[in-house]
Amino acid sequence: MKYRIIEDGTVTTPKGFSAGAVFVDIKAAKKKPFDLALLYSDAPCAAAGVFTTNKIKAAPVMLCQQRLRAQRARAIVANSGCANACTGDQGRRNAEQTALLAAQKLGIKSEDVLVASTGVIGTHLPMEKVARGIEAIELAPGGGHDFARAIMTTDTFPKEIAVTLDIDGRPVTIGGVAKGAGMIHPNMATMLCFITTDAAVEPAFLKRALRRCVDDTFNMISVDGDTSTNDTVLLLANGRAGTVTLHNGSTDAEHFEEALGEVCLYLAKSIARDGEGSTKLIEVTVEGALSVADARLAARTIVGSPLVKTAVYGSDPNWGRVVAAAGRSGAEIVESKVDLYLDHLCLMSSGTPLPFDSGEAKRLMDQKEVRFRLCLNLGEGAATAWGCDLTEEYVALNGDYTT
Amino acid sequence: MKYRIIEDGTVTTPKGFSAGAVFVDIKAAKKKPFDLALLYSDAPCAAAGVFTTNKIKAAPVMLCQQRLRAQRARAIVANSGCANACTGDQGRRNAEQTALLAAQKLGIKSEDVLVASTGVIGTHLPMEKVARGIEAIELAPGGGHDFARAIMTTDTFPKEIAVTLDIDGRPVTIGGVAKGAGMIHPNMATMLCFITTDAAVEPAFLKRALRRCVDDTFNMISVDGDTSTNDTVLLLANGRAGTVTLHNGSTDAEHFEEALGEVCLYLAKSIARDGEGSTKLIEVTVEGALSVADARLAARTIVGSPLVKTAVYGSDPNWGRVVAAAGRSGAEIVESKVDLYLDHLCLMSSGTPLPFDSGEAKRLMDQKEVRFRLCLNLGEGAATAWGCDLTEEYVALNGDYTT
Repeated sequence: MKYRIIEDGTVTTPKGFSAGAVFVDIKAAKKKPFDLALLYSDAPCAAAGVFTTNKIKAAPVMLCQQRLRAQRARAIVANSGCANACTGDQGRRNAEQTALLAAQKLGIKSEDVLVASTGVIGTHLPMEKVARGIEAIELAPGGGHDFARAIMTTDTFPKEIAVTLDIDGRPVTIGGVAKGAGMIHPNMATMLCFITTDAAVEPAFLKRALRRCVDDTFNMISVDGDTSTNDTVLLLANGRAGTVTLHNGSTDAEHFEEALGEVCLYLAKSIARDGEGSTKLIEVTVEGALSVADARLAARTIVGSPLVKTAVYGSDPNWGRVVAAAGRSGAEIVESKVDLYLDHLCLMSSGTPLPFDSGEAKRLMDQKEVRFRLCLNLGEGAATAWGCDLTEEYVALNGDYTT
Repeated sequence: MKYRIIEDGTVTTPKGFSAGAVFVDIKAAKKKPFDLALLYSDAPCAAAGVFTTNKIKAAPVMLCQQRLRAQRARAIVANSGCANACTGDQGRRNAEQTALLAAQKLGIKSEDVLVASTGVIGTHLPMEKVARGIEAIELAPGGGHDFARAIMTTDTFPKEIAVTLDIDGRPVTIGGVAKGAGMIHPNMATMLCFITTDAAVEPAFLKRALRRCVDDTFNMISVDGDTSTNDTVLLLANGRAGTVTLHNGSTDAEHFEEALGEVCLYLAKSIARDGEGSTKLIEVTVEGALSVADARLAARTIVGSPLVKTAVYGSDPNWGRVVAAAGRSGAEIVESKVDLYLDHLCLMSSGTPLPFDSGEAKRLMDQKEVRFRLCLNLGEGAATAWGCDLTEEYVALNGDYTT
């Protein structure tokens, strides 16, 4: 372990970053204290992003994808309550106008501002409120905590972390915030994540490192199988720690990527744990698959199965559902080779059900974290996915989201 | 319309078929009056089947697939309460033994008996009870109604139909029963369906006609996105109507396939309507897709989306979720060309949200059948899929299925 977690760390913990948030009535007042936020670096940043694979992309996603071709940015405006998705030309103009307003306030170029939105699809951003809000935001070095709260929708707790590591004998810091809740699925979901670092990072390496970290973390969680129009992970590196610039292949670059992976993993698991209405985190590890791709497919299908999710909710050791989900995943499986474990308890060996202590199984499923391990015994591919149980509360939350 | 529906019709309505059912305590007594059933034809039948695409296949599925290579059968034993899946060699022996017991009772060859199971995965069939039950079953020409009840698990009503049509001036009949409820998804789900006809049908045509009908009906429904280990559709044709043998390509064969399609459609929609805990049927038609495959993919993804399903449950016209689901389906979509209708109400035109009468939208979503039509305006591909809303009751039903 080359890094350590900073207590109370957030997206403004790395040097040179500040943030602030306001409430301007974009989302229902009952929901959260803020709905519009700004993150700013006092120095230019190398920047990278990963976005939704949905063919219907929200206006802010398209704006970010375009601007990140330059691999740089200095500020991010984020709002909750309105996704600015399925909003046509007006939506694109509103996203650009939002960036312009922030640029004018900060005295930077509009091209250096990224935007992100989450909330209801098909409604326009209330631009007067956005303008008034951006004007009113006060940036502060400790403003990351407010930023984390401003992006929440049905999240029940803010998701924040910062870690520090040494590069070339000097400390650098990586901070991150995220929001999740519903519509979370492999290949990114209605999740927004913003990561900052004061390390100096060469843009091409930054992009590749982020891509790899996202694949193993955010792309391995599922709340409800829906992939949203707005999923966004943005990473800004401002170099204010004064360390050497990290390039692909160096030892320090590896350490940096490991720490970045930890930030992503912590935030991804927090999102899975906080799935709408959920009461438990489900962790599924698939080992011995023919390939890593097969292992990912099987693990993600299992954590996404409504029948597995409801069984975990009810602490029902109905383990056949785990094997059945793997069977429909598309991954290669030979039934007579399959072993299945609930935590340390073996439920199936070489495709044959084993008698097991049902009291112990119930006890393991009553934990806040329920772990399955499926050994396919076909090859070397392994992967882990995270999800949450499916509860009556999920249905209640999503039955009247806009009304 | 070349066929008409027979009142109170079922799987034993076609000539020469009889059935019976008993309760032998394979499934919990509180659940349904029967759990073991037998269907029999007094003449040899051409037979065809379509089965789950899950790589983990239940023992009865493997037995049917093997026996149907001969394209003939005369009897089917079906049970609920135990899926006989993930049961290894013992499971295979139990499926064979079940067929043998029925063959001995009926005085036919064991190879002419098919078996089907539904229920909990990973438990063995209680063979003493099965033997006692098969012995006790009394076959009757009106026994199809009992057969339909014996295969129910969490179904709230039996699913039965029969239609009649003229072949060459003589009436022939097609009857069918099905069970569904949870774990229902495109590519077959925990559903069993048994169809009979007294038409004489050449086996190769029977197989192709069944495949085509299943693709447009059972493979276009979704309850919860889980594809089971046991999905089975079996079709027996005994020729007792005394009509000419139907071959591929003849006009009468087309009429027969149309009527067979109607039987499948009725049963598939009944399954979708009766999804666990559901209160509404959702019908999604996708038009103007680049291909039929794209239209199917988009329609099935929309009816399977938990966010669409919960929105329909809550009568929340949160239509962005419909477009977002299509966007992640993999089907080609150009946002600026998309039109979306809720029944007759246009919600989105050329990718731009339209103002709509929210009272009327609410009224349409309060109906027992909620219809969306998505026009992609890219090509000629069209398809319709059916599903149900997602309710708190689904979660409650599935949280303690085995306990």
